[in-house]
Amino acid sequence: MDTKPAVCLLSGGLDSATCLAYARREGFACYALSFDYGQRHRIELESAAKLAAILCAAQHVIMPIDLRVFGGSALTADIDVPKDGLFKQGIPITYVPARNTVFLSFALAWAEVLNASDIFIGVNAIDYSGYPDCRPEFIRAFEHMANLATKAGVESRTKISVHTPLITLSKSEIVKLAHELRVDFKITHSCYDPDEQGRACGLCDSCRLRLKGFEEAGVADPIAYRHADL
Amino acid sequence: MDTKPAVCLLSGGLDSATCLAYARREGFACYALSFDYGQRHRIELESAAKLAAILCAAQHVIMPIDLRVFGGSALTADIDVPKDGLFKQGIPITYVPARNTVFLSFALAWAEVLNASDIFIGVNAIDYSGYPDCRPEFIRAFEHMANLATKAGVESRTKISVHTPLITLSKSEIVKLAHELRVDFKITHSCYDPDEQGRACGLCDSCRLRLKGFEEAGVADPIAYRHADL
Repeated sequence: MDTKPAVCLLSGGLDSATCLAYARREGFACYALSFDYGQRHRIELESAAKLAAILCAAQHVIMPIDLRVFGGSALTADIDVPKDGLFKQGIPITYVPARNTVFLSFALAWAEVLNASDIFIGVNAIDYSGYPDCRPEFIRAFEHMANLATKAGVESRTKISVHTPLITLSKSEIVKLAHELRVDFKITHSCYDPDEQGRACGLCDSCRLRLKGFEEAGVADPIAYRHADL
Repeated sequence: MDTKPAVCLLSGGLDSATCLAYARREGFACYALSFDYGQRHRIELESAAKLAAILCAAQHVIMPIDLRVFGGSALTADIDVPKDGLFKQGIPITYVPARNTVFLSFALAWAEVLNASDIFIGVNAIDYSGYPDCRPEFIRAFEHMANLATKAGVESRTKISVHTPLITLSKSEIVKLAHELRVDFKITHSCYDPDEQGRACGLCDSCRLRLKGFEEAGVADPIAYRHADL
């Protein structure tokens, strides 16, 4: 086996599942990395573990990090998740401070240990819900920094690449790509505020984007929503 | 009180203590951030807590992160710390993968929550022991990335600055600055391989750099070394 290793960030959501499936199709040996960061929707970690197994990741690590110490987000602190319609402008309250920076930094650390020069992240700049750290200019800046931060950068060996195969896709294009890659939609979890049975609320930003994406793609979303009209 | 808040990385070593004292003298309300990352020399965390108290940090957080999951360094894995003289070229085995990237990412997350636009890190590019993530070009790249990663970057408010007051100082100049800032040297811990009483070995890279710095600065180092001839 001379497959190239790659670190793949895997939240357990639709986008990261699609990203992992994409990296696998590109022939990478994928080291899947998830974070237990005190998120309210912890069921996504179970989805991540199932996805890593079904997509034959070489290894799956769930890294515990406690961003709650810093507070400041509806996803980690005791603030209600907004459900009054898709977020329109500015930065939503569900934004977790510097989340992708922290996640990519850990991915970089693992990549360095593995001698891997490839990192995959399923960020998306189209239906990105207003997060600054999902934009192409952020990813390019991280990549540049990563090459100065590491042995690879100093010793001029292989350069670190941060791959973002979904970055210019709309949610419906992501659904179509996932369908083509035979991602098992039932395992993916997107909701910010699931109930105790893990059913999606259907009303948070993430559910609304997902539902809109499936509808526009003309693909059926097989997961359970707790509102009967969804 | 209208002092500006700043996040200050604080390892418990001489450099970060000096950096924190410097930030305090500049008038910042300092939020000191240390990491319990499975380091062998955990006594430095006790030093960090004492330094945060004595230097009147507004808050001190010790963030647990488990870089040992990834392995790959003498400071976190089961590899002997080299003691056969000062490191000469290349990157030493005591290098922790992407450490400063990970640490600065957490500092950035906290800064965002605090609405702080200033981060202090005591890196040093002169006697820096060969770490790539102590170089000025890395710091500038991180700062650039940080401004694209955050609300501040998107909403064009105050820009994030990463301050590195020690970056161009030699170890002896750092000792002189620390002396001027009245840093209590006895509390600082530098050794990579202390004994159970917390005494420094005097032989690892970090001890050798420290001893040389004190000698050149003409200042007495008050900490205990376990080798009688030091």
